[in-house]
Amino acid sequence: MDKKNFSRPIDIKNIKVTDSFWHSFQETVRREVIPYQWEALNDRVEGAAPSFCMHNFRAAARLMAEKKSQPDFQEPAYAYRGFETLPQDSGHPEPDKFYGFVFQDSDFYKWVEAAAYSLSSHPDKELEATVDEAIDLVCAAQHDTGYLDTYYILNGMDCAFTNLKDHHELYCLGHLVEAAVAYYQATGKDKLLGAACRYADYVDSRFGPEPGKRKGYPGHEIAEMALVRLYQATGEEKYLKLGKFFVDERGASPNYFLVEDRERAAREGRPAPGEDIASYSYYQADRPVREQEEAVGHAVRAGYLYSGMADVARLTQDEELFTACRRLWDEIVREKLYITGGVGGTVHGEAFSYPFDLPNDTAYSETCAAIALAFFARRMLEAEPKGEYGDVMELAMYNTVLSGMALDGRSFFYVNPLEVNPAACHADARLRHVKPVRQPWFGCACCPPNIARIVGSAASYAFTENESTLFTHLYMGAELTARNGLGLTLESRLPWEGWARMTVHTARPGGYTLAFRVPGWCRAPRFIGPEGIGQIQKDGYVYFTGEWKDGDTVTIELPMDIRLMGANPRVREDIGQAAVTCGPFCYCLEQADNGPDLHLCRVDANALGSARAGETIISGQSVSMLELPGFRQELAPAGPLYGEYAPAKESPVTLRFIPYYAWANRGEGEMRVWVRV
Amino acid sequence: MDKKNFSRPIDIKNIKVTDSFWHSFQETVRREVIPYQWEALNDRVEGAAPSFCMHNFRAAARLMAEKKSQPDFQEPAYAYRGFETLPQDSGHPEPDKFYGFVFQDSDFYKWVEAAAYSLSSHPDKELEATVDEAIDLVCAAQHDTGYLDTYYILNGMDCAFTNLKDHHELYCLGHLVEAAVAYYQATGKDKLLGAACRYADYVDSRFGPEPGKRKGYPGHEIAEMALVRLYQATGEEKYLKLGKFFVDERGASPNYFLVEDRERAAREGRPAPGEDIASYSYYQADRPVREQEEAVGHAVRAGYLYSGMADVARLTQDEELFTACRRLWDEIVREKLYITGGVGGTVHGEAFSYPFDLPNDTAYSETCAAIALAFFARRMLEAEPKGEYGDVMELAMYNTVLSGMALDGRSFFYVNPLEVNPAACHADARLRHVKPVRQPWFGCACCPPNIARIVGSAASYAFTENESTLFTHLYMGAELTARNGLGLTLESRLPWEGWARMTVHTARPGGYTLAFRVPGWCRAPRFIGPEGIGQIQKDGYVYFTGEWKDGDTVTIELPMDIRLMGANPRVREDIGQAAVTCGPFCYCLEQADNGPDLHLCRVDANALGSARAGETIISGQSVSMLELPGFRQELAPAGPLYGEYAPAKESPVTLRFIPYYAWANRGEGEMRVWVRV
Repeated sequence: MDKKNFSRPIDIKNIKVTDSFWHSFQETVRREVIPYQWEALNDRVEGAAPSFCMHNFRAAARLMAEKKSQPDFQEPAYAYRGFETLPQDSGHPEPDKFYGFVFQDSDFYKWVEAAAYSLSSHPDKELEATVDEAIDLVCAAQHDTGYLDTYYILNGMDCAFTNLKDHHELYCLGHLVEAAVAYYQATGKDKLLGAACRYADYVDSRFGPEPGKRKGYPGHEIAEMALVRLYQATGEEKYLKLGKFFVDERGASPNYFLVEDRERAAREGRPAPGEDIASYSYYQADRPVREQEEAVGHAVRAGYLYSGMADVARLTQDEELFTACRRLWDEIVREKLYITGGVGGTVHGEAFSYPFDLPNDTAYSETCAAIALAFFARRMLEAEPKGEYGDVMELAMYNTVLSGMALDGRSFFYVNPLEVNPAACHADARLRHVKPVRQPWFGCACCPPNIARIVGSAASYAFTENESTLFTHLYMGAELTARNGLGLTLESRLPWEGWARMTVHTARPGGYTLAFRVPGWCRAPRFIGPEGIGQIQKDGYVYFTGEWKDGDTVTIELPMDIRLMGANPRVREDIGQAAVTCGPFCYCLEQADNGPDLHLCRVDANALGSARAGETIISGQSVSMLELPGFRQELAPAGPLYGEYAPAKESPVTLRFIPYYAWANRGEGEMRVWVRV
Repeated sequence: MDKKNFSRPIDIKNIKVTDSFWHSFQETVRREVIPYQWEALNDRVEGAAPSFCMHNFRAAARLMAEKKSQPDFQEPAYAYRGFETLPQDSGHPEPDKFYGFVFQDSDFYKWVEAAAYSLSSHPDKELEATVDEAIDLVCAAQHDTGYLDTYYILNGMDCAFTNLKDHHELYCLGHLVEAAVAYYQATGKDKLLGAACRYADYVDSRFGPEPGKRKGYPGHEIAEMALVRLYQATGEEKYLKLGKFFVDERGASPNYFLVEDRERAAREGRPAPGEDIASYSYYQADRPVREQEEAVGHAVRAGYLYSGMADVARLTQDEELFTACRRLWDEIVREKLYITGGVGGTVHGEAFSYPFDLPNDTAYSETCAAIALAFFARRMLEAEPKGEYGDVMELAMYNTVLSGMALDGRSFFYVNPLEVNPAACHADARLRHVKPVRQPWFGCACCPPNIARIVGSAASYAFTENESTLFTHLYMGAELTARNGLGLTLESRLPWEGWARMTVHTARPGGYTLAFRVPGWCRAPRFIGPEGIGQIQKDGYVYFTGEWKDGDTVTIELPMDIRLMGANPRVREDIGQAAVTCGPFCYCLEQADNGPDLHLCRVDANALGSARAGETIISGQSVSMLELPGFRQELAPAGPLYGEYAPAKESPVTLRFIPYYAWANRGEGEMRVWVRV
């Protein structure tokens, strides 16, 4: 790490996304997703599982109001009442009861965060009023200690913080903070920020290295990076310290989760659980984070943890911690990354599988895990600008993150397979987690609002800056103002064409550096800057440094070849197969364009020269389509199951590929990314 | 069906297996498996899960003795006490308590049946005395009604026959009958046969089409074919009628399992379960058997049912029922059969998967399901001699049935995958059911004793006869005496070489037909009979008919080519791959002969002419080894996960294949049947 390379995202208020690709997704989020999700949080979407999220806040606010008004009010003693979800047809929920998952509160916070980003770029009085009203309710639900998790407020505060491992109180803190900071930055309103600080202060009073505090840390990470964000928003160093404590204590000995498991068993009169530290790898807590060498366990948790580690490492200039971040990053990229930018090979624990285990049909590749990977990548970039981080971030964002949402914004994928045969999904219990079409809303609705918040803040991933340099990581058309007041316009034809131009707007010439990522997918990039501006290339970035005048431009030419990609032969699932990419996109075959039985298709590796790029319309949107020569094996009408091997009877066909993000927008059908060669 | 083609296995006492291949397995069963399993049934095998099988009989016998000796004895009222298995280190089981699975009794019956076959060919006073003593115990445990299932005898007879669907009382009847008939036929002793008849009579008094009887049938089939066997052994037609009733009533409306589920719910004060008839497909009871068009549900149950259906169809000359058998047979062979003769593509329900879903690594392919398929095949042959039935029977018996047992007879596979990567088995919860090495004994120990009984009675699958014809289905070296007194000797070099000779021994010439199966795997079979004996070929059998003299021979030449086989392209898992077969064997690559990373191997389909057959020694036994030219892709030492596609760098290698039945006898390692071409 070199401090002078550190950078931070541009304040979202100083940037306007004009990019046709991303702006269209942001508009979909604004017009469709945010209103829809508000209805969902309020259990008003017909046919979708009720969320109970706002119900729970209302119930807690009522309880807190009672407490304030009655001097002799006794809070309920903890009684486990399950995480019940009311069957939709069984009438109304009990008004004082908690429903849904233990982390249900976080869905609201994610929604507020997405709404905040939307309000930043597109003010909307009505939406803002709705958010404000909801924030009033949430603040009314906050416990007088500052604690804020409706599960325990409603079920009994005496057991709060007794199961950090599996109950998501600190996860909810993290999302509360993310929402509060985003809403404060978007609107200047600090009511939710105040609630977030109060909850963070209370957590800080209970957990930390100091005597008398517990050495606990979140079971589901996110508070680490959220506390860093709170520190950056408020300047309060204690939040950074608390985040660092959560990072450093994780997996240390004695293992807090075991301590907690045993205390809970003792309290409940159960026999003490045995010491099975390895099982805490699901939580990345089987060893101290600095000693972790392999990305393991629940992939979303892992990505959030690594993001927090990178934040803390940068802000505390902790080389050892950053080395751990680099090691984990390398391991993911070298052994555990899908070509679609997804991670998490197995449904069991929604987790990273063992190295090189990247099954295509049973893939988990959760949308949120790709989002977490983008978080991690951006934070690595904030610490050291290297093209590889940008490449992976781009891969995740342009492919698996976006495939999580239908083009119309009305349905969502939790799981993003690389190969789908709908008949198998319906018939095969091994594929129960794989849905061939997107679903309207999930009981565990982590992904839809997570997509909304990353799409809304996409510009934060495209550009970062420090005092002297503006980094362009993604070629996302935008108008922006750098910290030093320099105006910049990026025109971009990406992701469809490899051309972009950055124009400088300045009243008076000044020294500055513009750095541009050289995409790993581009074989012959060209960067053309103004005369008199020096150009050097380092670690996958081209740096233009010098005195910039108004109207200066840098033209970026990134020819996009249609590429046939192969996997490392250690990936058993992909042997003998290839995937098609072009620019930031990974492509796939869909039944809608190629008929069923996609496993019969074979791409002609020798005829790549005659591949053609065109376009098609999907869900009303123009989407690129690549046509490659290939073959299709014939199906015998009713042949025997086995016979003498004979070379397959094949007919030449044109294989039509669409970008992975756009799949499953035309009804149910087969899809595959990896195609036989 | 044509009655004059009907045939029955030769009485096991009239046949002596001399075949080097099968005799060696029978000796392994006699020397290793039968003694080992007796120890296991008595919980005396260290390191293996206790069976509690004989414990349960002892406990029930004690209870029955008490009942006889105490005039005011009250049988216990039913109390669910679970199917507990005592942890091995927690001391002794309670003497009056039932342990293990609800079908635990059947393990003893399967063992007796295997012992009976062994005693038929190899008298053993000590073993016979052990069996007799155990039979005394089992008869002492029989309830005075004739009922015999220790689970309910010990837990409360008032609830007997209230859960035919999931409790295996009629399954235990089936295995009791199979054992009793085999032991009677082997030794002439009828004590167990008497117990079996008493239990069958009691069942007959409770179930049937007559008024006052319940219309129930087994949840786990086998009683159907067992009752047919009991009918054939005793001549009592009521057993055939009961078997036929079980077949005919299955899946009829109103569905008995639903009736029973609802009655049980009412008795236990639970809400009545909804009508979900489709879910009974697991039991092949979602529709009447005559209307079933697809093999579905638990594969062992299915195979046992179809066997019973074929028996009943033949004996009652029920064309409609036999048409259903043919349809189900065709569907299995056309859509659901592994090239190893295994069936059952999915661990979920140990079941047939959907058509053409034949995954290799997550295969279930239970040993018992292959055994059940052999049962079914033989019964189809008994009704109509067609080569296809014999081909599939042979495939199952020479491959998956035998792969269920280690060559030393000391460990067993329940699941028989076609592709194993031990590292994946250890790391991947999706492969939890796949063991890379055989296990000593299972809590659910259905497979080991089932292998013992089919190996012991292998000759019953090789030869069947009727008044005029002896059918040779499998070329298993043997000396036998036909029903008409004709002596026959089959010398055979199969399965290793394609040569066999049948010699006739007779004091006086006589008219007779010798029929020989023409194996589907043989491209150029030759059958050379004596002069003056007519030869015709029909439906995969060559018939020699005429007056036979002493010393007449038929020589059978069945050249065994090394064959490269391909799968129907509808089988997605096998696309672009081939399997190697030779004679009755399917072959596989093992790590022990070819190194790890078998997915990198590719067989050279153009160089099959230079394939060589040799042999190797595995577990002290000579086993054929085929050497085929191929290629092995190189692994980059530490390459990136993805890169521009390039044709694989490969080196020529010799691929060494061994028969599938002999895999996993040299420690843990990779294995695969299907190899890329």
